[in-house]
Amino acid sequence: DRGSVSTNAPHRRFNPLKGEWVLVSPHRTQRPWQGQQEATAGDEKPKHDPGCYLCAGNTRNSGAVNPDYKGPYVFDNDFPALLTDSPEGGTTGDPLFRADNVRGTARVMCFSERHDLTLPELPVPAIREVVDAWAGQVEELGAKWDWVAVFENKGAVMGCSQPHPHGQIWASDFLPNEVATEDGMQARHLSETGQVLLVEYAAAEAAKQERVIVENEHWIAVVPWWAVWPFETLVLPRRHVLRLPDLDGTERDALADLLKRLCTRYDNLFETEFPYTMGWHGAPTREGRYDHWQLHAHFYPPLLRSATVRKFMVGYEMLAEAQRDLTAESAAERLRALPDLHYKDRLN
Amino acid sequence: DRGSVSTNAPHRRFNPLKGEWVLVSPHRTQRPWQGQQEATAGDEKPKHDPGCYLCAGNTRNSGAVNPDYKGPYVFDNDFPALLTDSPEGGTTGDPLFRADNVRGTARVMCFSERHDLTLPELPVPAIREVVDAWAGQVEELGAKWDWVAVFENKGAVMGCSQPHPHGQIWASDFLPNEVATEDGMQARHLSETGQVLLVEYAAAEAAKQERVIVENEHWIAVVPWWAVWPFETLVLPRRHVLRLPDLDGTERDALADLLKRLCTRYDNLFETEFPYTMGWHGAPTREGRYDHWQLHAHFYPPLLRSATVRKFMVGYEMLAEAQRDLTAESAAERLRALPDLHYKDRLN
Ligand SMILES: O=P(O)(O)O[C@H]1O[C@H](CO)[C@@H](O)[C@H](O)[C@H]1O
Ligand SMILES: O=P(O)(O)O[C@H]1O[C@H](CO)[C@@H](O)[C@H](O)[C@H]1O
Repeated sequence: DRGSVSTNAPHRRFNPLKGEWVLVSPHRTQRPWQGQQEATAGDEKPKHDPGCYLCAGNTRNSGAVNPDYKGPYVFDNDFPALLTDSPEGGTTGDPLFRADNVRGTARVMCFSERHDLTLPELPVPAIREVVDAWAGQVEELGAKWDWVAVFENKGAVMGCSQPHPHGQIWASDFLPNEVATEDGMQARHLSETGQVLLVEYAAAEAAKQERVIVENEHWIAVVPWWAVWPFETLVLPRRHVLRLPDLDGTERDALADLLKRLCTRYDNLFETEFPYTMGWHGAPTREGRYDHWQLHAHFYPPLLRSATVRKFMVGYEMLAEAQRDLTAESAAERLRALPDLHYKDRLN
Repeated sequence: DRGSVSTNAPHRRFNPLKGEWVLVSPHRTQRPWQGQQEATAGDEKPKHDPGCYLCAGNTRNSGAVNPDYKGPYVFDNDFPALLTDSPEGGTTGDPLFRADNVRGTARVMCFSERHDLTLPELPVPAIREVVDAWAGQVEELGAKWDWVAVFENKGAVMGCSQPHPHGQIWASDFLPNEVATEDGMQARHLSETGQVLLVEYAAAEAAKQERVIVENEHWIAVVPWWAVWPFETLVLPRRHVLRLPDLDGTERDALADLLKRLCTRYDNLFETEFPYTMGWHGAPTREGRYDHWQLHAHFYPPLLRSATVRKFMVGYEMLAEAQRDLTAESAAERLRALPDLHYKDRLN
């Protein structure tokens, strides 16, 4: 299906979910690197840290005290970017100076009481609890807001300001850019082809087996054809599912299993707690028809060559177009070849 | 003109050049920061560094030897992301696995022989030489390629791998995403309003004086209404100009003056060599009518609170929508208030 494109030479690939291109320069992997080196997270962390704002029983920066929680613990962000009670409905008229007032809410979710265990280091049943907590948040907040963002910034290099493993939930009375774009592209695909874009895509990737990293009966994780970040992945259910709360128990267990295997491979790649931004894109919770949507998670990890050398999305990327060196296929091959056993368990 | 929007409360602003929104959370500036701290560039650098790949007379990584240059020096990138001789015209058929072969070229431009002087530290006539070199590159490469990217990644935090002050030029046989988007938005504005979007915008900002940082007879630099990065700026000619080579001598001198004043303020803000990605967006050099275009430069600097604390565009930003804390107006006010004298000159 590659027509006459040579994927060993510079080429562009099209992202049908965003309507954007990415420049791929496979010959460029030999480029020397003398730039910034990232710090790595120290592996020695206590199970409970008395100085951590997020650990059970501790007092947060805001003065609030965390309960003695076990498993996922969700609380309101002490410094939310969105407020439930800001002025409603205001908008400016001038097309060059357009603004809208917005409302929303922001929460933090500690994945478990363990300060020392990141997602892939938790046992599968504990990851299943995280899946349930994510779904519960979308259910609860989706009843009130138009869209619910569920995401994790992992690692200092990804702007994470607290080492205790946690994610965030931001809900809003508007569809953010990325969601609006994906909504439009998926709607167009359904109306033009009669197919749900990402359901069709998951089936095609499962058949090709060129970019698959891990899969099970209910889920598949691939380096998408149009990946921008060196080891970017897309996690997809095989069944047509609109949102996290729609997953049944078996699918949630299978997701916990898949996430454990995917994130373990990430950690094993450079034997480090692999930093990333990950998050769920589900159909809007605003009233409407969303048959064109398929639930999915994006993992955007910055590392390129080692635990300390990342890809910078700057310059050409910010002003012109995202660019990558290694192909999606070679990234997938490398991740696929890694063991299911976490490097920390191997070393013990 | 702000209608009923309260810009002290969370709101979204619309970028008419990209057709995207940015979430503004002005109440959030008090948020504590315990995350990553950036390294700062040491201020003590020699005028010529024998170990620098870019200094005059030195041997580069590739084995090529730099001439004994003075002023701007342009050479072919030793590790170009685009190649002039890759296979041409290949394209895939499957809409979910689309790719095109592409061609292009990449060059590096040392701003001057001085290893120790960044753009704002050069005298105005030396900056004028940089302006001429940029224009010359667009002229030369634009004759062959569809678009020419002229940009600078400044600082290790912006992925710059060589301390010697330099920029890059990438030319391609396609319009990159950002350019295609701006092309479409500007074309639409002209056809809908009869006005050139950024010419109209520059005049409106000059009249309002709310977001202007520096200006002269020919140029204006503003924190745009829709700025994403904390101290992002947009540099605009007052006259309708399509591309850098169209600037006359007086306009080039005026640009050198404006860049010196703008970048000096950047450096003075946190008394550091202010990192950024900057670059020029001019009309495509591919055949066509481009009356809707206005030449402009974007500065995307990451710093937020100090020389060591940056804004991270991660999580919500990558998966949902860019978010900022301080408003464009307060950022402009802070930059405007700074002196024209560079902090390094003051300290000497
Ligand atoms: O060409 P350089 O300086 O080695 O590389 C830098 O600029 C390029 C163009 O913006 C980016 O693609 C790289 O990620 C960045 O590290
Ligand atoms: O909320 P935090 O963890 O303090 O902040 C982090 O995540 C946010 C949401 O992605 C970003 O806006 C911030 O730039 C980042 O530092």
